[in-house]
Amino acid sequence: MYSESSTIAAISTSMSEAGIGIVRMSGEESFEIADRIYRGKRNKKLSEQKSHTIHYGYIEEDGETIDEVLVMLMRGPHTFTGEDTVEINCHGGVYVPRRVLEACLRGGARPAQPGEFTKRAFLNGKLDLSQAEAVIDVIQSRNDYALKSSVSQLKGSVKRKVEEIRSKILYHTAFIESALDDPEHISIDGYGQTLERDVEELLDEIQRLLDSADDGRIMKEGVQTVIVGKPNAGKSSVLNMLLGEERAIVTDIAGTTRDILQEHMNLHGISLNIVDTAGIRKTDDKVEKIGVDRALSQAREADLIIYVVDSSLPLDENDRKIFRFIAGKKSIILLNKSDLARRTGDEEIRQMCREQGMEEPPVLSVSAKEEEGIEELEQAVKEMFYHGDISFNSEVYITNARQKHALESARQSLEKVLESIHMDMPEDFYSIDLMDAYESLGTITGETVGEDLVNEIFSKFCMGK
Amino acid sequence: MYSESSTIAAISTSMSEAGIGIVRMSGEESFEIADRIYRGKRNKKLSEQKSHTIHYGYIEEDGETIDEVLVMLMRGPHTFTGEDTVEINCHGGVYVPRRVLEACLRGGARPAQPGEFTKRAFLNGKLDLSQAEAVIDVIQSRNDYALKSSVSQLKGSVKRKVEEIRSKILYHTAFIESALDDPEHISIDGYGQTLERDVEELLDEIQRLLDSADDGRIMKEGVQTVIVGKPNAGKSSVLNMLLGEERAIVTDIAGTTRDILQEHMNLHGISLNIVDTAGIRKTDDKVEKIGVDRALSQAREADLIIYVVDSSLPLDENDRKIFRFIAGKKSIILLNKSDLARRTGDEEIRQMCREQGMEEPPVLSVSAKEEEGIEELEQAVKEMFYHGDISFNSEVYITNARQKHALESARQSLEKVLESIHMDMPEDFYSIDLMDAYESLGTITGETVGEDLVNEIFSKFCMGK
Repeated sequence: MYSESSTIAAISTSMSEAGIGIVRMSGEESFEIADRIYRGKRNKKLSEQKSHTIHYGYIEEDGETIDEVLVMLMRGPHTFTGEDTVEINCHGGVYVPRRVLEACLRGGARPAQPGEFTKRAFLNGKLDLSQAEAVIDVIQSRNDYALKSSVSQLKGSVKRKVEEIRSKILYHTAFIESALDDPEHISIDGYGQTLERDVEELLDEIQRLLDSADDGRIMKEGVQTVIVGKPNAGKSSVLNMLLGEERAIVTDIAGTTRDILQEHMNLHGISLNIVDTAGIRKTDDKVEKIGVDRALSQAREADLIIYVVDSSLPLDENDRKIFRFIAGKKSIILLNKSDLARRTGDEEIRQMCREQGMEEPPVLSVSAKEEEGIEELEQAVKEMFYHGDISFNSEVYITNARQKHALESARQSLEKVLESIHMDMPEDFYSIDLMDAYESLGTITGETVGEDLVNEIFSKFCMGK
Repeated sequence: MYSESSTIAAISTSMSEAGIGIVRMSGEESFEIADRIYRGKRNKKLSEQKSHTIHYGYIEEDGETIDEVLVMLMRGPHTFTGEDTVEINCHGGVYVPRRVLEACLRGGARPAQPGEFTKRAFLNGKLDLSQAEAVIDVIQSRNDYALKSSVSQLKGSVKRKVEEIRSKILYHTAFIESALDDPEHISIDGYGQTLERDVEELLDEIQRLLDSADDGRIMKEGVQTVIVGKPNAGKSSVLNMLLGEERAIVTDIAGTTRDILQEHMNLHGISLNIVDTAGIRKTDDKVEKIGVDRALSQAREADLIIYVVDSSLPLDENDRKIFRFIAGKKSIILLNKSDLARRTGDEEIRQMCREQGMEEPPVLSVSAKEEEGIEELEQAVKEMFYHGDISFNSEVYITNARQKHALESARQSLEKVLESIHMDMPEDFYSIDLMDAYESLGTITGETVGEDLVNEIFSKFCMGK
């Protein structure tokens, strides 16, 4: 298809009204192409300028000026892609960047495919695959934790950790192979024990990475939160209180909410994807019944359930059903309507939890009507999902399903190595499984992935990156 | 309010998923603020680097990395604003540029108001007001003519023309004042004739600029085009054919379109804003009648009327009414349904035009069904609105209502000068009106505008420009 060495061009900013737009070119001919379409003062040639310099001038085509621009020149290999790179800062908007891009294409560049700049950075060894994947995570990040973990990955935290584990595995494989090749000089007696101890350590390290993946997913995608409760307990009011706006329609009529309402909010750097649901009760109304079923199925998938109880009413059979449902899940109980006379309090909740044999979740008094209790709720969510402050300087977080899968494969292979040791199998069995683990981990950094997977990964990128 | 000399910062790209985002700072402290939040290799200080250079590194806050960036340093006065400027190219998206902006603000910058960068460029004498206004026109341009005319204005075409006219006016004012001050040495006898000739020339120049304003508006905003015709003549099919998509609902039922459908399209660099309307006929149906009234009122405002005639039917009373309506307007008649047996042709159209005593507009045969005749239509529109190729190298186009208004005021004042000459008024009457014209023209370049108007003009800008 396309030559990998041809010069590519794309608009790297989004196509809407804004002050500045950027058209980026990367490849051997970038400077020459820029010279063909640029006119600066005193006919200066861009290709003769120093690297990492900025030049004011005009983009022209057939003697007509397209736009007034700043051109940034960066010579490979000290660029993002590793190749000669030109970035043309033109005016923003929909039309101007497109016309500047067209000039680049007529000048000799070809349109870049989505993610092709980052793909070239990967192919030229400027980034490993985990860093390349972090690029898109940074762009898509919606909260501070997601941003920090992806920037840390971009800076090579995952890469370094994986390389460290791989090099230990490689050491053992190499030792076993050498010993088998040259048994007279290298003794392998008792080597099983050494290997066992090291593999167990490696398994611990991999497990720690896998454990981080749940936190990682929550950082990246947010806490899937579902608000449940009986009809008219005030679930929609709680949603509105959290969002600080009138998102859900609130009435006194039990069963007002039937559809699933989904909203996104930031809570001290944690993203919550909050789903408001129909009130849960036994009902004969067909539409309402569908709503209740949907509510329960949403709640089953949730990271967090916020259970809103109307504290002005006693607990009943419907509540009992909800308690049974939330047992064993991360949940917070909100005693709503704290502005009214109380019929259900901490004691009743505790009693109900005992009946169900479940641990008591945090219970908070709130009044959605008076907007009271929101800080306590925020605090409770934060403690539940982030135990203390997360430091991104030391810890490595896995936020990527593909990487998680590779770690799981590596764990399986290493567990097989342990099995073989325990069963006293011949040493060459060890090295087969060690190499499998080595390969699996290599897919994270991209050392052992095929072209298809690489193409698939970069095709998910946005244009111009 | 805000000090004009403080350092301002804003995101200059749009906030959506994209490869690159730019946070821009301008002002005295830009470099210092950048040093506070930037960490590069070997602790290099940005403030010590050369102008117009690019630096790779990280934006940090409290020891945590926010993003990997390229920082562009440009020292005033050789910058857009004329001040020291730093542009931070970070990753795009919604969250990252916002975090980088926050770091700049905590570092000591204050948020820029919309258009404030360009306003500073104006206040620092880097652009006159006509050039500043061109900046937003470039960003908002939607076609090649609009882009070319606004880039030409940005490059100073309007400024130079206006300054040329003003300097001629100033020469005469100065001469008259000197002669009145020192009648013994400077004779003013017969000066009325010289002045008359020069003012007439100036009036011609201003009129040429005013004449360009209609073309200018069309370039910028597009040709307001209304499709009219009897019910079921195929107006909606013609619209769909032009757009190349099924925008309007098309049925065999006369009177399907009642609402006004408005669409935008580019035709060889000309923008058309096309309005499809209800078929025009006498009707008792209330809703349809409203539709017909709206169609006629739209057509009254139009730059171009495309009149679709069903050529498989003879012309009738309703057509006669439409002919009366389009007489004296720029219009094109489409004989639609050219795939069916013809009952109306060029001859019938010519006959009708003669009856109405009107000039015959271009008549084209098309078949919306077969998509035949679209090229001819495009050609006809082009010839009608652009006589030959427009050269933006020599001509100056006025595209701005404010500038047009200022030119009209100047014209009025100069006409008063001519009147005074013809009425043989004393010479100091001339100079009052000459100075009025001079002032009016000065509002175009911004030399004689108040702070309020300047603020109003820049408040319409987008953020970050």
